[in-house]
Amino acid sequence: MDHNVDIEYEGGEHVERNGSAYDERGMPRQPLLSKNRINTSSQIAIVGSNICPIESLDYEILENDLFKQDWRSRKKTEIFQYVVMKWTLCLLIGLLTGVVAFFNNLGVENLAGFKFLLTTNFMLQHKYYEAFFIFAGINLFLAVCAGALCAYIAPAAAGSGIPEVKAYLNGIDSHSILAPSTLFVKIVGSILGVAAGFVVGKEGPMVHTGACIANLLGQGGSRKYHLTCKWLRHFKNDRDRRDLITCGSAAGVAAAFRAPVGGVLFALEEVASWWRSALLWRTFFTTAVVAVVLRSLIGFCRTGKCGLFGEGGLIMFDINSTIPNYNMVDLLAVILIGVIGGILGSLYNYFVDKVVRTYSYINGKGPMVRVILVAVISLLTSCCAFGLPWFTTCVPCPVGLEVECPMVGRSGSYKYFNCQPGHYNDLGSLLLNTNDDAIRSVFSSTNPNEFRISSLSIFFIAMYVLGIITYGIAIPSGLFIPVILAGASYGRLVGILLVNFSNLDVGLFALLGAAAFLGGTMRMTVSLCVILLELTNNLLMLPLMMLVLLISKSVADNFNHGVYDQIVRMKGLPFLEAHAEPYMRHLVAGDVVSGPLISFSGVEKVGTIMHSLRFTSHNGFPVIDEPPLLESPEFCGVVLRSHLIVLLKGKMFTKDRRLTGTEMLQKYHAFDFAKAGLGRGPKLEDLDITPEEMEMYVDLHPITNTSTYTVAETMSLAKAAVAFRELGLRHLCVVPKTHGRPPVVGILTRHDFMPQHILGLYPGIDLQH
Amino acid sequence: MDHNVDIEYEGGEHVERNGSAYDERGMPRQPLLSKNRINTSSQIAIVGSNICPIESLDYEILENDLFKQDWRSRKKTEIFQYVVMKWTLCLLIGLLTGVVAFFNNLGVENLAGFKFLLTTNFMLQHKYYEAFFIFAGINLFLAVCAGALCAYIAPAAAGSGIPEVKAYLNGIDSHSILAPSTLFVKIVGSILGVAAGFVVGKEGPMVHTGACIANLLGQGGSRKYHLTCKWLRHFKNDRDRRDLITCGSAAGVAAAFRAPVGGVLFALEEVASWWRSALLWRTFFTTAVVAVVLRSLIGFCRTGKCGLFGEGGLIMFDINSTIPNYNMVDLLAVILIGVIGGILGSLYNYFVDKVVRTYSYINGKGPMVRVILVAVISLLTSCCAFGLPWFTTCVPCPVGLEVECPMVGRSGSYKYFNCQPGHYNDLGSLLLNTNDDAIRSVFSSTNPNEFRISSLSIFFIAMYVLGIITYGIAIPSGLFIPVILAGASYGRLVGILLVNFSNLDVGLFALLGAAAFLGGTMRMTVSLCVILLELTNNLLMLPLMMLVLLISKSVADNFNHGVYDQIVRMKGLPFLEAHAEPYMRHLVAGDVVSGPLISFSGVEKVGTIMHSLRFTSHNGFPVIDEPPLLESPEFCGVVLRSHLIVLLKGKMFTKDRRLTGTEMLQKYHAFDFAKAGLGRGPKLEDLDITPEEMEMYVDLHPITNTSTYTVAETMSLAKAAVAFRELGLRHLCVVPKTHGRPPVVGILTRHDFMPQHILGLYPGIDLQH
Repeated sequence: MDHNVDIEYEGGEHVERNGSAYDERGMPRQPLLSKNRINTSSQIAIVGSNICPIESLDYEILENDLFKQDWRSRKKTEIFQYVVMKWTLCLLIGLLTGVVAFFNNLGVENLAGFKFLLTTNFMLQHKYYEAFFIFAGINLFLAVCAGALCAYIAPAAAGSGIPEVKAYLNGIDSHSILAPSTLFVKIVGSILGVAAGFVVGKEGPMVHTGACIANLLGQGGSRKYHLTCKWLRHFKNDRDRRDLITCGSAAGVAAAFRAPVGGVLFALEEVASWWRSALLWRTFFTTAVVAVVLRSLIGFCRTGKCGLFGEGGLIMFDINSTIPNYNMVDLLAVILIGVIGGILGSLYNYFVDKVVRTYSYINGKGPMVRVILVAVISLLTSCCAFGLPWFTTCVPCPVGLEVECPMVGRSGSYKYFNCQPGHYNDLGSLLLNTNDDAIRSVFSSTNPNEFRISSLSIFFIAMYVLGIITYGIAIPSGLFIPVILAGASYGRLVGILLVNFSNLDVGLFALLGAAAFLGGTMRMTVSLCVILLELTNNLLMLPLMMLVLLISKSVADNFNHGVYDQIVRMKGLPFLEAHAEPYMRHLVAGDVVSGPLISFSGVEKVGTIMHSLRFTSHNGFPVIDEPPLLESPEFCGVVLRSHLIVLLKGKMFTKDRRLTGTEMLQKYHAFDFAKAGLGRGPKLEDLDITPEEMEMYVDLHPITNTSTYTVAETMSLAKAAVAFRELGLRHLCVVPKTHGRPPVVGILTRHDFMPQHILGLYPGIDLQH
Repeated sequence: MDHNVDIEYEGGEHVERNGSAYDERGMPRQPLLSKNRINTSSQIAIVGSNICPIESLDYEILENDLFKQDWRSRKKTEIFQYVVMKWTLCLLIGLLTGVVAFFNNLGVENLAGFKFLLTTNFMLQHKYYEAFFIFAGINLFLAVCAGALCAYIAPAAAGSGIPEVKAYLNGIDSHSILAPSTLFVKIVGSILGVAAGFVVGKEGPMVHTGACIANLLGQGGSRKYHLTCKWLRHFKNDRDRRDLITCGSAAGVAAAFRAPVGGVLFALEEVASWWRSALLWRTFFTTAVVAVVLRSLIGFCRTGKCGLFGEGGLIMFDINSTIPNYNMVDLLAVILIGVIGGILGSLYNYFVDKVVRTYSYINGKGPMVRVILVAVISLLTSCCAFGLPWFTTCVPCPVGLEVECPMVGRSGSYKYFNCQPGHYNDLGSLLLNTNDDAIRSVFSSTNPNEFRISSLSIFFIAMYVLGIITYGIAIPSGLFIPVILAGASYGRLVGILLVNFSNLDVGLFALLGAAAFLGGTMRMTVSLCVILLELTNNLLMLPLMMLVLLISKSVADNFNHGVYDQIVRMKGLPFLEAHAEPYMRHLVAGDVVSGPLISFSGVEKVGTIMHSLRFTSHNGFPVIDEPPLLESPEFCGVVLRSHLIVLLKGKMFTKDRRLTGTEMLQKYHAFDFAKAGLGRGPKLEDLDITPEEMEMYVDLHPITNTSTYTVAETMSLAKAAVAFRELGLRHLCVVPKTHGRPPVVGILTRHDFMPQHILGLYPGIDLQH
C-alpha cells in the first residue's frame, strides 16, 4: 500500500529521511511522521477502489544530446508535419467528442424515453404496481449493467473523472485513468447510468471521455499491430500529450453543455494547471469543431430519424423569460439566494465527502459488493421517483396552455401520473422524467404556478439527498446535473415565495438558484457564468448571474474547498497548488530533502545501475561526472528510469570506463526514448543482463538531461515550490552552497512539497506566517 | 539615445560584451553587433515621440532578511487588512472605470451631438459652405485641443495604450505610462478626439485609463500631502501592482464594450503575461462592478437628464436579426469573408506600421509639429466626411419605416444631407455621424437596401484609409472602432453581393465582416468572440463567429504579427515572449552573458558601492560573501539599486568590516524599502556621503535577496528563457559549473533574451532549428 505514496520518492524513502538527515535538529519528528504515514495510508485505504500506482509526468523539456541531435536534424517537412498533426488532432478530438456526446444523448433519450413510455402505458391502465415493477426493473437492469462494467472492467471509469483529469494536467498519472477500457466503460456506463434514472449527469463523464479520446489519439494507433502513424511520433511525450488532453477536456465540456466558449473557460479555470495563449487558441478551435458537429447532428435529428430523440437545439435550456428592470428588492433577493446557495453548496460538498469516504470503504470489499451498492441506490432512486408523487394532490390543468395537458405520450411537463382527466401531478412531472427535462421544466417561466411550493420542496430535498448519496457508487456520474437540479428547484422555490415582491419571474429565480448552487459546490466563476449563459441563451442575465456566483463562492469558500479539489485530496493525489504556503517561506530547500542520494557516474557500471533500478523506486537519478574523467566531481544532469531501461536494453556496453556518446548518437534515435503508451514501454523485468555485462560500463551522457533546473540548498522552500510548479518539473536538484561537498545534495519531487510531508517533518511550524 | 537600450544591461555594457568576452570564438561579431546597435538606435529614433527610459519590474518575490522579518511579524489583523484592501481596490477600480467610461460616453455624445445639430441646421437652410466651416471648425478646435494636451502635457497618452499596458504587465515600465497626467490627458483627450470626428475608438484608451486608475489606487494617495493609507502599504510592490493593473485593464475593456466577460478574457488573452486562477476571480469581480455601475448610470440617463445622451442599453449594438438555418453556401460565404478579412487585416497592420514609423519621425520634431499633424488629419477627415456624400445620389425613403426619414434632428440613420424631401443620402448617414451610430447603422438589418453598394464601397475605403492614417497622431486613439467600421462595411458589402445566394441577412454579414477584420488585425480569438457576442447579444451567432475568427487569424498570421505586438516591437520595448525561440536551444546561458561583472562583498565599502551606482546603470548587483567572513567565496544573493540607495541614505556604516544585520533589522522596516510611486523614491543624487563615510563599511545582508534563482552556465538558453519568463524574473544569476572560479559568472536580464541581442552576438546562427 505504501507503494502508492513512495513510488515517486527520490533520494531515500520516507523512513530514511526521517531517521538520518534531521536527527541533529532534535525535533520529535519520528512519532509524528509515523502518524502521518499511517494517515496517508488510511487515506489511500479509504479510497480502496482506486488502489493504483501513481506516477509523475515530465512536463519539462528534456534536453539531452540525443534529443538535441534530433531537433537539429529535424527537416522543414517534419516541422510542417508537426503543425499539421497538431491541428488535425484537435480537429479529430473535437469531431469524436462531438459524435460521442451526440450518441450519448441519443442513447439516453431513447432508453429513458422507452422506459417512460412503457411505465406511462401501465399507469394509464391504472396498473400502478405493474408500472412500478417495470420502472424499477428497467432502472435496476440498466444500473447493474453500468455498475458491473465499472466494477469488473474499468474501476477508473467510476465517478466524475474531472478530478482525475485535473490531477493528470497537474502532473499526476493515476493508473489507467486514460486507458481505452476506461473510455469504453465511461461512454457506455454513462449512457446506462443516466438512462437508469440516477440523479447523475453526463457532463463530468463527457470531460473524462474527451480527455481519454485526446490521449488515445495522441498515442497514435497501436504499435503492436503496426498501425502507428509516423507523423505522430513528435507527440510521444508528456508535454504535447498534456496540451491534447487540455483540448479534450474543453471539448468534453463544450459537448456536454453545447457551450463552446464555456468549454474553453472551464478547461482554463478548473482543469488545466498550466496555460498559455497558444493553448487558448487550440482549445477554442477544438470546441468550435464540437459545436459545429453537434449542431449538424442535431439538425439531422430534427428530421425525426433518431427515434425518441429530437428535442432541443444547440442551446439546451432556451429560457425566453423577459428580463425586467430589476430593482433594489430584486438585488436583495439575489444576494439572499447567493448566500443561502453558498451555504447549501458547501454543505453539499461536506456530505459528498463523507459519503464518498464511506462508499470507498464499502467498494473496497470487492467488485460484487460495488454492484450491490449500485443496485441498492438504484432501487432507492426508483422508489423516490415513483413513490413521492403519491404524497401530493393533483393540480387542474391551466386553461389556454400551448402544450398537451395532462401529457401522456412522451417525456415532458404536465405529467398525467395518477390523476383524473384534466389534471396533472406536478411532482410526478419532475420526478418521473429525465434529468434534462426536469431542469427544463423548473427553468420554464410560461406558467409560474406549474409547480406548487410543497411539490418543489419535496423535489428539492429528494434531489439534494439523492445527489449526495449517488456520487461515489461504481457508475460514471457527473456532479453538474444533480447540483443544477437541486439549485434550480431551490431557486424557483424562493421565486414563488417572493413573487409579490420581485419583478423577476420564477424561471429566472430557478436559473439564479442553479448558479448559486454551482458556485457553492464547484467554486468556479467565469466558466460557470459563461456555461450558464450559453445553456440558457440569455445574455441580459449576466450581471445578476455574476453577482450570485461571486456571493455564493465567497460564502462557501469560508467553509471548505471546491468539490473537485476535495475529491483530489481524498484520493491522496499529490496535487501541486499554484501558490506556495506561507510556512514554506521559513524553510529552505535543504530542509525537506534528505539523503542518502542515489546518483550515477557519467559512465557507470551496468551492475550499479541495475541494482539501483531494482532496489529503489526512484524515477530520476542525478548523473555526476567524476574523476578520472574530470578533475573534481561535477553535476551533469538527471537521467530518467524509463530512459535507462531503454539504454540498458540496447546493450551498448564497454569493458572499460570510456565515453561512447558519438557512437550511441548514431545507433539510437530520439524516438526510441519517446514516451510509450500506457504499459507498453520496456520493463525492468524484461532486461536480460548477463553477469559479465553487469561488470561492463555504459555511457549515460547521451540520455542525461543536461539542462536540469537546480536550486541552492539555501533557497527558500516557497520559491523552490514556485519554480517547481511554474516550470512543470518532475525532479528539482538541490545543489550545495559550500565547496567540498558532492555537487548534488538531493532531489525534490512533488511529494516533498505536500503539506502533510512538511508538517510531518516540522510539526511545530507556524502555519499562519 | 543608447540610454534607452542600455539602462537595464547588467554585467557590462554592450560594447564590453562584444569586445571582451567572445573574441576567442573568432566570429566576425564586432561589425555586425555594431550594425545591430545602429538598427536598435534608429528604431528608437523612429518612435521619437517616445524617448523615455524604460525600467524592468520586479515580479519575483524578494526574500531578504528584512522582508522575512516583516512576514513573520505580520499580525492577523494585517493579513485581514490586506485581503479587505485587495477586494476594496478591485471594487474601486471597477467603480471609477465605470464612471469614467460613462462620462466619456456622455461627453462624446453631447459634444458630437451638438456639432451635428448645428451642422444639420445650416444644411437644412442650404447654407452648405457655412455648414462645412462650422463642421470642420468644431472638429479642428476639438482636435487641436486634444493634440495640444497630448503633445505638451502627456506624450505617453497618445495612441491606444494597450501595447504599453501589455508591456508593463510583461515587466517593462516605460516612463510615466501610468502617471496621473497621462490618465488626465487620456480621459479628456479621448473625449475630444472622438468628438472631433476622427476615425478612432475610445476602447483602447479606456483600457489604458483602467490601468492608470488601478496604478494610482494601488499607490495609495499622496505621501507628500500625508494622505497615504496605511492599509495600502502591502501593495507597494510591483507584484501586487501588476495584479491591480490587470484588473484595471479588464475593467477598461468591460467598460468600453459593456462586456464584462469579454473584459476578463481580453485581459487574459491579450494583455496579461502571467495569469493565475485567483486573478480570474478578481478581474471577474472588477468587471462585474463595472457592468453594474454602467447599467445604473445608463438607466439614470434613460430619464432624459443627460442632454443628448440617452441611446443604448448595456448592450451596444442590439442586433435583432433572426438566425436562419445556414447551409453550405452560407458556410462558403463565411469562409470567404474570413480569408479576405484576414488578408485585409494583415495589410492594415502593415500600413499602420509604416504610417506610425513615418509619424514618429514627424512627431520627433517637437510638440508644435505634432499639433499641426493632428490639425492636418482633422481637416482631411472633415473633408472626407463632408465631401464624399456629394458624390452619391439621394435615395428615396422606403415606405413603412418606423423611424423618421429623412432624419433631420439628431444623430441616427437616414440623414437628410443635401437631398430633396422624402429622400436621404445613404453615404451621408454613415459619414456625418458618430462612429457608434455608423456601426449601429451598418449592423442593422431592418432595411437590407438602406445602403447601396457604391456608398458602402466608398465608406469602406474611406474608413480603411482614414483608420490607417489616423493612428499614430498625438491623440488617444483606439484601434477597435476603425477596424470594426471598415470590417462591418466590408461584410455588409459582401452580404449585398451574395443576397441571392445566402440565407444570412446583411446585418449578420456586417457582424461577420467586423469579426474577420478584428481577427485579422488583433489576432485574438476567444476574447473577441465573447466581446462581439456581448456587444450584439446574439449567442446563436457563436459557431459562425468562431469559424470566421479562426480563419481570419490563421490567414493573417502567415503575413505578420498582431497590431499590438507590432507596436510593442516598434517602440523597442524588450517584450519577453512566452516561448523560447528554437535557436536558443543550441546556446547556453554562458554564451550570452559577459564580464566584467560588478559584484559586492557581503559587507562592502561605501565608496565602492557609490562608485558602482554612479558609473554603471545596473539595477541589480550580486552579493558575494568572501574571506575573511567565510573560508571561500560564496554567492549570497542579489541587491537592487533602489534598496542600496535607501540603505546608504540611512547611513548605518561601521568603521570596520563587520556584520550589523541584527541592529539594522531593528532600525529599518520593510516598508522603508517598498517600491515608491512614480519618481518619488530617493535618488542617487540626493545622497550626501562625506569622504570619511566613503571609507566606511555597510552590511548588505539584510537587503540581499537570498533566494535568487540561478542557472548553471551550461543550462541551455532556451530553458533559462523559460525560467526567466515563467518565474517573472528581473535578474537571473549564472553560476559556474566548475570549481575554482568566482561563484557568479554573470547576470541575465530581459535584454539578453532579445532576438536582436542574440543574433547580434551570433549572426551565423540557424534560425529554424
